[in-house]
Amino acid sequence: MQVRAAVAYEAKKPLVVETVELEGPKAGEVLVELKATGICHTDEFTLSGADPEGLFPVIFGHEGAGVVVDLGPGVTSLAKGDHVIPLYTPECRQCKSCLSRKTNLCTKIRATQGKGVMPDGTSRFSIGKTKLHHYMGCSTFSNYTVLPEIALAKIRPDAPFDKVCYVGCGVTTGVGAVVNTAKVDPGSNVVVFGLGGIGLNVVQGARIAGADMIVGVDINPQREALAKQFGMTHFVNPKTVKGDLVSHLVDLTNGGADYSFECVGSVDLMRQALECCHRGWGESIIIGVAGAGQEIKTRPFQLVTGRVWKGSAFGGARGRTDTPKIVDWYMNGKIEIDPLITHTLPLDRINEGFDLMRAGQSIRTVVVY
Amino acid sequence: MQVRAAVAYEAKKPLVVETVELEGPKAGEVLVELKATGICHTDEFTLSGADPEGLFPVIFGHEGAGVVVDLGPGVTSLAKGDHVIPLYTPECRQCKSCLSRKTNLCTKIRATQGKGVMPDGTSRFSIGKTKLHHYMGCSTFSNYTVLPEIALAKIRPDAPFDKVCYVGCGVTTGVGAVVNTAKVDPGSNVVVFGLGGIGLNVVQGARIAGADMIVGVDINPQREALAKQFGMTHFVNPKTVKGDLVSHLVDLTNGGADYSFECVGSVDLMRQALECCHRGWGESIIIGVAGAGQEIKTRPFQLVTGRVWKGSAFGGARGRTDTPKIVDWYMNGKIEIDPLITHTLPLDRINEGFDLMRAGQSIRTVVVY
Repeated sequence: MQVRAAVAYEAKKPLVVETVELEGPKAGEVLVELKATGICHTDEFTLSGADPEGLFPVIFGHEGAGVVVDLGPGVTSLAKGDHVIPLYTPECRQCKSCLSRKTNLCTKIRATQGKGVMPDGTSRFSIGKTKLHHYMGCSTFSNYTVLPEIALAKIRPDAPFDKVCYVGCGVTTGVGAVVNTAKVDPGSNVVVFGLGGIGLNVVQGARIAGADMIVGVDINPQREALAKQFGMTHFVNPKTVKGDLVSHLVDLTNGGADYSFECVGSVDLMRQALECCHRGWGESIIIGVAGAGQEIKTRPFQLVTGRVWKGSAFGGARGRTDTPKIVDWYMNGKIEIDPLITHTLPLDRINEGFDLMRAGQSIRTVVVY
Repeated sequence: MQVRAAVAYEAKKPLVVETVELEGPKAGEVLVELKATGICHTDEFTLSGADPEGLFPVIFGHEGAGVVVDLGPGVTSLAKGDHVIPLYTPECRQCKSCLSRKTNLCTKIRATQGKGVMPDGTSRFSIGKTKLHHYMGCSTFSNYTVLPEIALAKIRPDAPFDKVCYVGCGVTTGVGAVVNTAKVDPGSNVVVFGLGGIGLNVVQGARIAGADMIVGVDINPQREALAKQFGMTHFVNPKTVKGDLVSHLVDLTNGGADYSFECVGSVDLMRQALECCHRGWGESIIIGVAGAGQEIKTRPFQLVTGRVWKGSAFGGARGRTDTPKIVDWYMNGKIEIDPLITHTLPLDRINEGFDLMRAGQSIRTVVVY
């Protein structure tokens, strides 16, 4: 079938919105009509050429929501008409990782997903004789896409697509890092580095987890108001702190953070986030994606005296099991999404969404089909 | 009173065994007659001059066992004749750390202990007009010493001093890192870097925790036999591994270690220990003490994909609460200590114990008074 998609032919070039050929779903696969998709920093990271595993030509996008329109042979857990969120972290419920009960990082289709193809090793997208790569197993910058059944979360039908598409990445990544990875407990002091699309969701995750003190750290003073609306109790702008930022944060939190979160992707901030944790028990969670080859560093004494260094991918959430719950939390008013979606655009103007993100003018731009 | 002690006047020089003046216990303090003390790498670390916080002149030793012979005013939890183990990690049960239930790192007397003095800011040891520093709050290289009440664990009276002194540091550090810090669960795959006085105790800790696979890594092939006696199931000598050690360990453990432990103090091994952990959930525990200024490094991707980096001090054991239980485990035959004590010496020959340790000929030398 012919679909409309934003194609990235090479790094650092604008996306080209055009008609693309999409093959129907094969065994275990599902055809989804996308209704909306967010534009995430991870798309920009690969588009910028900084991602060493980036493949071109490709159809980006991994933060979508849509409706099941066709099923390949053997699909049993979904039906036509189901509302779904595509999952770049699938959940097969059968691999060693899924059965471990210790991680959300299903490995069932990891190898092919990393190569930009479906589990059978081929792509469903093409233009003429040119095959286009899938991206993160999702490719939501297309009004139709094909995904494996295990990479789709079925959600309630009354949730608005143009809001809950954000649950497919940013919301779950931030809220989940708090509730699944860190397991923040009521009364905790939390420090959040970076108040963008992830950090603000960490802030509201900490709020619903019952944190006492939620300290937001950002060099952009314009983030303060929105972060306070989401539950931030204290704002720290590193540019206006006299002396050492880590010492300032340790003092502010009466000995250090119980939990800290790095939501930027800077290895220097990752170190500060660890070292502002409380001696004896403070845990620091890395969420941001650092540039290729960059390394985190600290003195081992920081760990020997009780700090813990962790990371979180997709908020530690099991895609099919936990994502629908986050949608429920939004529908029940437990978390907010609407204020984070600062811009809405049609697919034809998707490059404007990237410009807004690069300029720091948007929290999230959503493309509506 | 006059006591016999091994005095370190400066770094890199042999200890001098001589008569030293010891003041009696002040309020909240206890006079202990030492019966035995181990010689630990940490004593050597400070004696070598590598410890940036090392103070001289000083009486080293922090791995002792003895008998209470006098009490200062206000001491209520101990009586004359009690058998005790000195604690370099005290347990006041009243500070923020003790009450957190999350750490063993009591902060009650940390400031003065780091300065080599008792909590009132003075030393009890002197020679003529020269004050001698206390070491790690213990100074067990003296046949009598004074400690705060909160830095003494009362143990059962039938435990042999010349064996359970080792519980005061090495045994608890190794076994405790497994049961308290990592909380190794039955069926786990464990990798232990370094099969010395700490690593062998990690091995037996992993055994009593029910680990399936216990992989020991050491460049000294002579450690293999003893480690197997303690529960090691697989021995890896990095010198004989072809190719990358981390890949070898990941293959051997069918995807990576569930838990790994660094027991050497090498920042390079700390990185390998982290990176040989299983994607999704593997936890690496740093026990070894690295040289001043050295830093650990890795790519943040290692953590984002689910590995956890931790450290452990005194095995995460609460001194007064947990140390007596480790002594019970020894007396009940749950853990072994005797094969680890390879040499016994009188105080006059204490420098020979350091020589044996530097030459890698001993696991533990115990000085018996």
